Amino acid sequence: MARYTESMEELIRRLGKFPGVGPKSAERMAFYILHSSGQDVEALTQAISKVKKSTGFCKQCNNLSEGDLCAICKDPGRDHTLICVVEEPKDIIAIEKGSHFRGIYHVLLGALSPLDGIGPDDLKIKELISRIKALGVKEVIIATNSDTEGEATALYLTKVIRSLKVKLTRIAFGVPIGSDLEYADQVTLSRSLAGRRDL
Amino acid sequence: MARYTESMEELIRRLGKFPGVGPKSAERMAFYILHSSGQDVEALTQAISKVKKSTGFCKQCNNLSEGDLCAICKDPGRDHTLICVVEEPKDIIAIEKGSHFRGIYHVLLGALSPLDGIGPDDLKIKELISRIKALGVKEVIIATNSDTEGEATALYLTKVIRSLKVKLTRIAFGVPIGSDLEYADQVTLSRSLAGRRDL
Repeated sequence: MARYTESMEELIRRLGKFPGVGPKSAERMAFYILHSSGQDVEALTQAISKVKKSTGFCKQCNNLSEGDLCAICKDPGRDHTLICVVEEPKDIIAIEKGSHFRGIYHVLLGALSPLDGIGPDDLKIKELISRIKALGVKEVIIATNSDTEGEATALYLTKVIRSLKVKLTRIAFGVPIGSDLEYADQVTLSRSLAGRRDL
Repeated sequence: MARYTESMEELIRRLGKFPGVGPKSAERMAFYILHSSGQDVEALTQAISKVKKSTGFCKQCNNLSEGDLCAICKDPGRDHTLICVVEEPKDIIAIEKGSHFRGIYHVLLGALSPLDGIGPDDLKIKELISRIKALGVKEVIIATNSDTEGEATALYLTKVIRSLKVKLTRIAFGVPIGSDLEYADQVTLSRSLAGRRDL
Protein backbone atom coordinates (compact mmCIF):
# COMPACT_ATOMS: atom_id res chain seq x y z
CA MET A 1 0.00 0.00 0.00
CA ALA A 2 1.41 3.33 -1.04
CA ARG A 3 1.78 6.00 1.60
CA TYR A 4 2.69 9.63 1.89
CA THR A 5 6.32 10.51 2.56
CA GLU A 6 7.73 9.42 5.92
CA SER A 7 7.59 12.91 7.42
CA MET A 8 3.98 13.40 6.28
CA GLU A 9 2.96 10.06 7.81
CA GLU A 10 4.61 11.03 11.10
CA LEU A 11 2.85 14.42 11.12
CA ILE A 12 -0.55 12.86 10.29
CA ARG A 13 -0.03 10.36 13.13
CA ARG A 14 0.80 13.17 15.59
CA LEU A 15 -2.10 15.41 14.52
CA GLY A 16 -4.48 12.44 14.74
CA LYS A 17 -3.85 12.34 18.49
CA PHE A 18 -5.73 15.60 19.03
CA PRO A 19 -9.19 15.14 20.55
CA GLY A 20 -11.87 15.08 17.87
CA VAL A 21 -9.36 14.79 15.02
CA GLY A 22 -9.71 11.62 12.94
CA PRO A 23 -7.34 10.31 10.26
CA LYS A 24 -9.06 12.28 7.46
CA SER A 25 -8.96 15.58 9.37
CA ALA A 26 -5.34 14.95 10.33
CA GLU A 27 -4.58 14.44 6.64
CA ARG A 28 -6.27 17.72 5.71
CA MET A 29 -4.39 19.53 8.48
CA ALA A 30 -1.06 18.07 7.36
CA PHE A 31 -1.71 19.26 3.79
CA TYR A 32 -2.62 22.68 5.15
CA ILE A 33 0.75 22.80 6.92
CA LEU A 34 2.52 21.63 3.76
CA HIS A 35 0.91 24.40 1.73
CA SER A 36 1.40 27.14 4.36
CA SER A 37 4.24 29.64 4.15
CA GLY A 38 7.40 28.88 6.14
CA GLN A 39 6.62 31.95 8.25
CA ASP A 40 3.17 30.69 9.27
CA VAL A 41 4.53 27.25 10.13
CA GLU A 42 7.26 28.82 12.25
CA ALA A 43 4.67 30.95 14.07
CA LEU A 44 2.54 27.85 14.72
CA THR A 45 5.37 25.78 16.19
CA GLN A 46 6.44 28.75 18.32
CA ALA A 47 2.89 29.25 19.61
CA ILE A 48 2.78 25.57 20.57
CA SER A 49 6.10 25.64 22.41
CA LYS A 50 5.28 28.95 24.10
CA VAL A 51 2.03 27.71 25.63
CA LYS A 52 3.86 24.78 27.14
CA LYS A 53 6.58 27.04 28.57
CA SER A 54 4.68 30.10 29.74
CA THR A 55 1.17 28.99 30.70
CA GLY A 56 0.74 27.40 34.10
CA PHE A 57 -1.96 27.38 36.77
CA CYS A 58 -2.81 30.17 39.22
CA LYS A 59 -1.37 29.22 42.64
CA GLN A 60 -4.59 30.34 44.29
CA CYS A 61 -7.52 29.25 42.10
CA ASN A 62 -5.90 26.92 39.48
CA ASN A 63 -7.12 29.04 36.58
CA LEU A 64 -4.71 29.31 33.65
CA SER A 65 -2.09 31.95 34.34
CA GLU A 66 1.22 33.18 33.02
CA GLY A 67 2.36 34.32 36.49
CA ASP A 68 1.82 33.09 40.06
CA LEU A 69 -1.69 34.55 40.22
CA CYS A 70 -4.27 34.81 37.43
CA ALA A 71 -5.80 38.12 36.33
CA ILE A 72 -9.00 37.46 38.30
CA CYS A 73 -7.27 36.66 41.60
CA LYS A 74 -5.04 39.74 41.19
CA ASP A 75 -8.04 42.04 40.59
CA PRO A 76 -8.74 44.06 43.80
CA GLY A 77 -12.08 45.17 42.34
CA ARG A 78 -13.57 41.69 42.66
CA ASP A 79 -15.35 40.30 45.69
CA HIS A 80 -12.93 37.86 47.31
CA THR A 81 -15.56 36.59 49.75
CA LEU A 82 -17.64 35.05 46.95
CA ILE A 83 -16.14 31.90 45.39
CA CYS A 84 -17.55 30.15 42.34
CA VAL A 85 -16.36 26.53 42.07
CA VAL A 86 -15.94 25.15 38.52
CA GLU A 87 -14.44 22.00 36.99
CA GLU A 88 -12.13 23.46 34.35
CA PRO A 89 -10.47 26.78 33.41
CA LYS A 90 -12.70 26.94 30.31
CA ASP A 91 -15.76 27.09 32.56
CA ILE A 92 -14.42 30.41 33.91
CA ILE A 93 -14.29 31.80 30.37
CA ALA A 94 -17.89 30.67 29.79
CA ILE A 95 -19.14 32.36 32.96
CA GLU A 96 -17.11 35.55 32.41
CA LYS A 97 -18.38 35.84 28.83
CA GLY A 98 -22.03 36.00 29.64
CA SER A 99 -22.56 37.13 33.20
CA HIS A 100 -21.88 39.94 35.59
CA PHE A 101 -20.34 37.74 38.25
CA ARG A 102 -17.93 39.83 40.29
CA GLY A 103 -16.59 37.22 42.73
CA ILE A 104 -13.56 34.96 42.29
CA TYR A 105 -13.23 31.34 41.22
CA HIS A 106 -11.85 28.00 42.30
CA VAL A 107 -11.01 25.44 39.62
CA LEU A 108 -11.15 21.79 40.73
CA LEU A 109 -9.29 20.64 37.60
CA GLY A 110 -11.74 17.78 37.03
CA ALA A 111 -14.78 16.10 38.53
CA LEU A 112 -15.29 13.00 40.65
CA SER A 113 -15.42 9.91 38.44
CA PRO A 114 -14.93 6.60 40.26
CA LEU A 115 -15.04 4.70 36.95
CA ASP A 116 -11.99 6.63 35.72
CA GLY A 117 -10.33 6.33 39.14
CA ILE A 118 -10.72 10.03 39.94
CA GLY A 119 -11.43 10.49 43.65
CA PRO A 120 -11.59 13.57 45.93
CA ASP A 121 -7.81 13.56 46.40
CA ASP A 122 -7.25 13.98 42.66
CA LEU A 123 -9.19 17.26 42.63
CA LYS A 124 -8.25 20.58 44.21
CA ILE A 125 -10.77 20.14 47.05
CA LYS A 126 -8.38 20.41 50.00
CA GLU A 127 -7.12 23.70 48.54
CA LEU A 128 -10.71 24.94 48.29
CA ILE A 129 -11.35 24.16 51.97
CA SER A 130 -8.19 26.02 53.03
CA ARG A 131 -9.23 29.04 50.93
CA ILE A 132 -12.71 29.10 52.43
CA LYS A 133 -11.21 29.01 55.92
CA ALA A 134 -8.48 31.58 55.22
CA LEU A 135 -10.35 34.19 53.16
CA GLY A 136 -13.42 34.69 55.33
CA VAL A 137 -15.59 33.57 52.44
CA LYS A 138 -19.30 34.40 52.71
CA GLU A 139 -20.74 32.33 49.88
CA VAL A 140 -19.60 29.35 47.79
CA ILE A 141 -21.42 28.81 44.47
CA ILE A 142 -21.04 25.31 43.06
CA ALA A 143 -21.00 25.54 39.27
CA THR A 144 -19.89 22.04 38.27
CA ASN A 145 -21.56 20.54 35.18
CA SER A 146 -25.00 18.94 35.27
CA ASP A 147 -23.72 15.52 34.13
CA THR A 148 -23.23 12.54 36.46
CA GLU A 149 -19.66 13.47 37.39
CA GLY A 150 -20.52 17.12 37.97
CA GLU A 151 -23.54 16.24 40.12
CA ALA A 152 -21.52 13.73 42.16
CA THR A 153 -18.86 16.37 42.72
CA ALA A 154 -21.48 18.93 43.79
CA LEU A 155 -22.94 16.40 46.25
CA TYR A 156 -19.51 15.63 47.71
CA LEU A 157 -18.64 19.33 48.02
CA THR A 158 -21.97 19.99 49.75
CA LYS A 159 -21.16 17.40 52.39
CA VAL A 160 -17.63 18.70 52.96
CA ILE A 161 -18.41 22.42 52.95
CA ARG A 162 -21.68 22.23 54.93
CA SER A 163 -19.73 21.98 58.21
CA LEU A 164 -17.83 25.21 57.52
CA LYS A 165 -20.86 27.44 58.23
CA VAL A 166 -20.68 29.25 54.93
CA LYS A 167 -23.58 29.98 52.56
CA LEU A 168 -23.59 27.26 49.90
CA THR A 169 -25.47 27.55 46.60
CA ARG A 170 -25.76 25.68 43.30
CA ILE A 171 -26.33 27.38 39.94
CA ALA A 172 -29.85 26.93 38.49
CA PHE A 173 -30.57 24.23 35.90
CA GLY A 174 -33.63 24.45 33.68
CA VAL A 175 -34.91 25.34 30.25
CA PRO A 176 -32.39 27.54 28.41
CA ILE A 177 -33.41 31.11 27.59
CA GLY A 178 -34.77 31.52 24.08
CA SER A 179 -35.60 27.84 23.59
CA ASP A 180 -38.99 26.16 23.16
CA LEU A 181 -40.40 24.09 26.03
CA GLU A 182 -41.45 21.62 23.35
CA TYR A 183 -37.84 20.79 22.57
CA ALA A 184 -36.55 20.58 26.15
CA ASP A 185 -35.75 17.03 27.30
CA GLN A 186 -37.65 15.46 30.19
CA VAL A 187 -34.83 15.65 32.73
CA THR A 188 -34.28 19.34 32.05
CA LEU A 189 -38.01 20.02 32.32
CA SER A 190 -38.38 18.18 35.60
CA ARG A 191 -35.31 20.01 37.00
CA SER A 192 -36.84 23.24 35.76
CA LEU A 193 -40.15 22.52 37.54
CA ALA A 194 -38.43 21.41 40.75
CA GLY A 195 -36.39 24.63 40.75
CA ARG A 196 -39.40 26.96 40.22
CA ARG A 197 -39.39 30.31 42.00
CA ASP A 198 -42.09 32.54 43.47
CA LEU A 199 -43.17 35.50 41.36
CA MET B 1 -14.64 39.74 28.71
CA ALA B 2 -12.17 37.43 30.37
CA ARG B 3 -9.83 35.46 28.17
CA TYR B 4 -7.26 32.72 28.43
CA THR B 5 -3.63 33.73 28.88
CA GLU B 6 -2.03 35.56 25.99
CA SER B 7 -0.07 32.56 24.77
CA MET B 8 -3.18 30.35 24.90
CA GLU B 9 -5.17 32.90 22.89
CA GLU B 10 -2.42 33.05 20.28
CA LEU B 11 -2.29 29.25 20.01
CA ILE B 12 -6.10 28.96 19.72
CA ARG B 13 -6.06 31.60 16.98
CA ARG B 14 -3.35 29.70 15.06
CA LEU B 15 -5.02 26.30 15.43
CA GLY B 16 -8.35 27.81 14.35
CA LYS B 17 -6.83 28.47 10.92
CA PHE B 18 -6.73 24.75 10.10
CA PRO B 19 -9.40 23.62 7.65
CA GLY B 20 -12.42 22.20 9.46
CA VAL B 21 -11.25 23.43 12.87
CA GLY B 22 -13.61 25.90 14.54
CA PRO B 23 -12.99 27.99 17.68
CA LYS B 24 -14.28 25.25 20.01
CA SER B 25 -12.12 22.54 18.44
CA ALA B 26 -9.11 24.86 18.49
CA GLU B 27 -9.74 25.40 22.21
CA ARG B 28 -9.87 21.65 22.86
CA MET B 29 -6.69 21.15 20.86
CA ALA B 30 -4.90 23.93 22.77
CA PHE B 31 -5.88 22.33 26.09
CA TYR B 32 -4.66 18.99 24.78
CA ILE B 33 -1.28 20.59 24.05
CA LEU B 34 -1.24 22.25 27.48
CA HIS B 35 -1.85 18.90 29.17
CA SER B 36 0.59 16.91 26.98
CA SER B 37 4.07 16.03 28.16
CA GLY B 38 6.91 18.32 27.09
CA GLN B 39 8.30 15.41 25.08
CA ASP B 40 5.11 14.96 23.04
CA VAL B 41 4.86 18.68 22.34
CA GLU B 42 8.49 18.75 21.21
CA ALA B 43 7.83 15.78 18.89
CA LEU B 44 4.77 17.55 17.44
CA THR B 45 6.59 20.80 16.68
CA GLN B 46 9.46 18.85 15.15
CA ALA B 47 7.09 16.83 12.96
CA ILE B 48 5.53 20.09 11.72
CA SER B 49 8.87 21.71 10.92
CA LYS B 50 10.20 18.56 9.31
CA VAL B 51 7.32 18.20 6.85
CA LYS B 52 7.88 21.78 5.73
CA LYS B 53 11.63 21.18 5.29
CA SER B 54 11.80 17.69 3.84
CA THR B 55 8.60 17.09 1.88
CA GLY B 56 8.41 18.57 -1.58
CA PHE B 57 6.89 17.55 -4.89
CA CYS B 58 8.20 14.92 -7.29
CA LYS B 59 9.91 16.73 -10.18
CA GLN B 60 8.23 14.38 -12.63
CA CYS B 61 4.66 13.75 -11.45
CA ASN B 62 4.14 16.33 -8.63
CA ASN B 63 3.34 13.62 -6.09
CA LEU B 64 4.66 14.27 -2.57
CA SER B 65 8.29 13.27 -2.33
CA GLU B 66 11.27 13.65 -0.03
CA GLY B 67 13.72 13.49 -2.92
CA ASP B 68 13.70 14.63 -6.57
CA LEU B 69 11.52 11.70 -7.63
CA CYS B 70 8.71 10.01 -5.70
CA ALA B 71 8.69 6.30 -4.89
CA ILE B 72 6.28 5.50 -7.75
CA CYS B 73 8.27 7.34 -10.44
CA LYS B 74 11.47 5.65 -9.22
CA ASP B 75 9.90 2.18 -9.37
CA PRO B 76 11.19 0.36 -12.50
CA GLY B 77 8.53 -2.31 -12.02
CA ARG B 78 5.73 0.06 -12.98
CA ASP B 79 4.45 0.72 -16.49
CA HIS B 80 5.77 4.15 -17.47
CA THR B 81 3.67 4.23 -20.64
CA LEU B 82 0.41 4.35 -18.68
CA ILE B 83 -0.29 7.66 -16.94
CA CYS B 84 -3.18 8.25 -14.55
CA VAL B 85 -4.00 11.97 -14.16
CA VAL B 86 -5.31 13.05 -10.75
CA GLU B 87 -6.02 16.38 -9.03
CA GLU B 88 -4.15 15.98 -5.74
CA PRO B 89 -1.45 13.75 -4.18
CA LYS B 90 -4.10 12.29 -1.85
CA ASP B 91 -5.93 10.89 -4.88
CA ILE B 92 -2.85 8.75 -5.58
CA ILE B 93 -3.08 7.29 -2.07
CA ALA B 94 -6.77 6.51 -2.64
CA ILE B 95 -6.10 4.72 -5.93
CA GLU B 96 -3.07 2.84 -4.62
CA LYS B 97 -4.98 1.67 -1.56
CA GLY B 98 -7.72 -0.13 -3.42
CA SER B 99 -6.60 -1.06 -6.88
CA HIS B 100 -4.00 -2.99 -8.78
CA PHE B 101 -3.04 -0.08 -11.01
CA ARG B 102 0.56 -0.59 -12.12
CA GLY B 103 1.11 2.55 -14.21
CA ILE B 104 2.43 5.92 -13.05
CA TYR B 105 0.66 9.16 -12.15
CA HIS B 106 0.52 12.84 -12.97
CA VAL B 107 -0.78 15.23 -10.32
CA LEU B 108 -2.32 18.47 -11.64
CA LEU B 109 -2.21 20.07 -8.17
CA GLY B 110 -5.75 21.35 -8.52
CA ALA B 111 -8.67 21.52 -10.94
CA LEU B 112 -9.98 24.18 -13.32
CA SER B 113 -12.18 26.62 -11.45
CA PRO B 114 -12.83 29.92 -13.24
CA LEU B 115 -14.80 31.23 -10.24
CA ASP B 116 -11.70 30.88 -8.05
CA GLY B 117 -9.50 32.23 -10.82
CA ILE B 118 -7.81 28.88 -11.48
CA GLY B 119 -7.11 28.48 -15.20
CA PRO B 120 -5.11 25.92 -17.24
CA ASP B 121 -1.85 27.77 -16.57
CA ASP B 122 -2.26 27.32 -12.81
CA LEU B 123 -2.32 23.52 -13.16
CA LYS B 124 0.51 21.20 -14.20
CA ILE B 125 -0.98 20.64 -17.67
CA LYS B 126 1.98 21.84 -19.75
CA GLU B 127 4.17 19.40 -17.79
CA LEU B 128 1.71 16.58 -18.56
CA ILE B 129 1.85 17.30 -22.30
CA SER B 130 5.68 17.27 -22.24
CA ARG B 131 5.66 13.95 -20.38
CA ILE B 132 3.23 12.38 -22.85
CA LYS B 133 5.42 13.48 -25.74
CA ALA B 134 8.72 12.47 -24.10
CA LEU B 135 7.84 9.10 -22.54
CA GLY B 136 6.13 7.42 -25.46
CA VAL B 137 2.98 7.11 -23.41
CA LYS B 138 0.36 4.66 -24.72
CA GLU B 139 -2.64 5.53 -22.56
CA VAL B 140 -3.70 8.48 -20.42
CA ILE B 141 -6.42 7.78 -17.81
CA ILE B 142 -8.18 10.90 -16.57
CA ALA B 143 -9.13 10.37 -12.92
CA THR B 144 -10.16 13.87 -11.86
CA ASN B 145 -13.14 14.12 -9.49
CA SER B 146 -16.74 13.90 -10.69
CA ASP B 147 -17.64 17.40 -9.43
CA THR B 148 -17.99 20.45 -11.70
CA GLU B 149 -14.32 21.41 -11.47
CA GLY B 150 -13.11 17.85 -12.06
CA GLU B 151 -15.43 17.38 -15.06
CA ALA B 152 -14.38 20.73 -16.57
CA THR B 153 -10.73 19.73 -16.15
CA ALA B 154 -11.39 16.34 -17.79
CA LEU B 155 -13.11 18.09 -20.73
CA TYR B 156 -10.21 20.52 -21.15
CA LEU B 157 -7.62 17.73 -20.97
CA THR B 158 -9.58 15.72 -23.56
CA LYS B 159 -9.38 18.63 -26.01
CA VAL B 160 -5.68 19.22 -25.42
CA ILE B 161 -4.54 15.58 -25.42
CA ARG B 162 -6.78 14.37 -28.30
CA SER B 163 -4.32 15.83 -30.85
CA LEU B 164 -1.41 13.83 -29.44
CA LYS B 165 -2.66 10.51 -30.89
CA VAL B 166 -2.60 8.71 -27.56
CA LYS B 167 -5.34 6.48 -26.11
CA LEU B 168 -7.40 8.61 -23.74
CA THR B 169 -9.77 7.18 -21.13
CA ARG B 170 -11.84 8.39 -18.19
CA ILE B 171 -12.46 6.31 -15.05
CA ALA B 172 -16.01 4.91 -14.75
CA PHE B 173 -18.64 6.68 -12.69
CA GLY B 174 -21.73 4.87 -11.48
CA VAL B 175 -23.35 3.13 -8.57
CA PRO B 176 -20.74 2.25 -5.89
CA ILE B 177 -20.10 -1.43 -5.22
CA GLY B 178 -22.05 -2.78 -2.28
CA SER B 179 -24.67 -0.03 -2.31
CA ASP B 180 -28.39 -0.24 -3.06
CA LEU B 181 -29.72 1.17 -6.36
CA GLU B 182 -32.58 2.56 -4.30
CA TYR B 183 -30.24 4.94 -2.48
CA ALA B 184 -28.22 6.11 -5.48
CA ASP B 185 -28.94 9.70 -6.54
CA GLN B 186 -30.38 10.46 -9.98
CA VAL B 187 -27.22 11.89 -11.50
CA THR B 188 -25.19 8.84 -10.45
CA LEU B 189 -27.86 6.51 -11.82
CA SER B 190 -28.08 8.24 -15.17
CA ARG B 191 -24.25 8.24 -15.44
CA SER B 192 -24.34 4.57 -14.54
CA LEU B 193 -26.88 3.80 -17.29
CA ALA B 194 -25.06 5.90 -19.88
CA GLY B 195 -21.82 4.07 -19.05
CA ARG B 196 -23.34 0.57 -19.36
CA ARG B 197 -21.15 -2.17 -20.86
CA ASP B 198 -21.83 -5.26 -22.98
CA LEU B 199 -21.89 -8.57 -21.13
